[in-house]
Amino acid sequence: MDLIAREGTRLMATHVAAAAHLFALVAAVLLLVWTIRFGGGIALHSSNKERVLNVHPVVMFMGFIFVAGEAIMAFKIIRAPKKLQKLVHMALQLVALGLGSFGVYAAFKYHRESHIPDMTSLHSWLGMATICLVGLQWIFGFLLFWFPGAPRPARVAAAPLHACAGVALFLMTICTAETGLAQRAAEPGMESRLLNFAGLFILLFGVVVSLSVALPRLTVHS
Amino acid sequence: MDLIAREGTRLMATHVAAAAHLFALVAAVLLLVWTIRFGGGIALHSSNKERVLNVHPVVMFMGFIFVAGEAIMAFKIIRAPKKLQKLVHMALQLVALGLGSFGVYAAFKYHRESHIPDMTSLHSWLGMATICLVGLQWIFGFLLFWFPGAPRPARVAAAPLHACAGVALFLMTICTAETGLAQRAAEPGMESRLLNFAGLFILLFGVVVSLSVALPRLTVHS
Ligand code: HEM
Ligand code: HEM
Repeated sequence: MDLIAREGTRLMATHVAAAAHLFALVAAVLLLVWTIRFGGGIALHSSNKERVLNVHPVVMFMGFIFVAGEAIMAFKIIRAPKKLQKLVHMALQLVALGLGSFGVYAAFKYHRESHIPDMTSLHSWLGMATICLVGLQWIFGFLLFWFPGAPRPARVAAAPLHACAGVALFLMTICTAETGLAQRAAEPGMESRLLNFAGLFILLFGVVVSLSVALPRLTVHS
Repeated sequence: MDLIAREGTRLMATHVAAAAHLFALVAAVLLLVWTIRFGGGIALHSSNKERVLNVHPVVMFMGFIFVAGEAIMAFKIIRAPKKLQKLVHMALQLVALGLGSFGVYAAFKYHRESHIPDMTSLHSWLGMATICLVGLQWIFGFLLFWFPGAPRPARVAAAPLHACAGVALFLMTICTAETGLAQRAAEPGMESRLLNFAGLFILLFGVVVSLSVALPRLTVHS
């Protein structure tokens, strides 16, 4: 790519990333206000079980959705050699999986302590399917692109599939979050408005991150 | 494309479309069983208001989601000159918009007759945003690619954007449907299992249709 095209791409990526970060920030603030102001707070250990439940949406958004979104955008916003971009992408997806598992654990903990049966809702089915598939995608990606790594022609052939599956999974994650919010629907009023706006901004984040995949890469040749 | 690559592509598209149709069929049957067996039936005019409400999910899935999915896959499964594929794509999207608007009208009718306030849920916000954006996308698409039509270089430049925005909107639609189902969550049991499986198959349809966009086109040169 020549220098001018390169600068144009970088500028576009900067704008897309800025929009994504703005949407994520607004969604995170709305979720925090909702859980703290209307849900009684956030705590993994508490006799107020609503607090235990509140750990789940906050960790799922900030830990699983937001971090995975950053991992997806890594190739477009980190000006570095390909190998380093890949390392950041892979490490962030692992962090997202770890935090996501912790967030799901919090939901199970809440169910256990409140004697509510597990895995009955549409949300829990979509969520479990999504996080398992994301785990599989991570393992495949690791074996293909990192260690031991497939031969170059196989990597080149598999890359668009990996990206497509990744975007589909990311949008499944967003979908799961929306069903989680929809289940907590409150009476019309301030609380439900907060929830709805949180849902809207989470969706906007999802759409912008997904579209960023269409941008050309910003790899620096070392 | 040479003949062999062409046949390979056609075969792949056939399989993807078959999977999409299977998922859509299962989802449609589950939705019908759910509304008829557990919701008391489907009717636009009835003193049993649940019947009026039931028009909405059935029409939204079969009329808005399924038809739009077929429109997206048209370029991959209709073996015809480009112009004819475009005509089918555009016409189907218009049908989807018409049926979608009718389905949303049914939800408003249910709310009016049951004295429930409109547009309070996350689902209704996502749904309204989605259908308005789909309408805009249709108008832009029509002006750019059909009549009067932009000059060829502009069309070529706009096509990938139109496709990306289209997939994002299609997945927003799926997301809306899932929140609609999540809101109707029933007690654990047969009904909720039906609902959850319907949601799962709607999502599978959405993922397969979205992935089909990555397949090469099947245009016959006339
Ligand atoms: C996007 C990532 C998310 C994933 C993968 C996920 C996954 C899950 C899973 C597997 C469960 C079942 C726990 C059990 O049965 O014991 C669950 C429960 C729950 N989640 Fe999420 N979740 C996500 C985001 C959210 C968000 C953003 C909310 C917003 C409020 C939420 C609300 C809930 C609620 C209320 C429950 C308990 C009721 C139920 O099982 O449906 N989740 N989640
Ligand atoms: C995917 C396309 C869909 C769109 C664009 C859509 C759109 C809408 C809109 C705009 C409303 C608000 C009506 C009002 O406020 O008077 C609504 C209501 C409703 N929809 Fe949907 N819908 C879709 C699919 C579904 C599905 C599959 C279900 C499954 C049960 C569903 C269940 C409901 C319910 C229960 C209501 C009434 C309660 C409420 O306003 O949230 N929808 N829908």
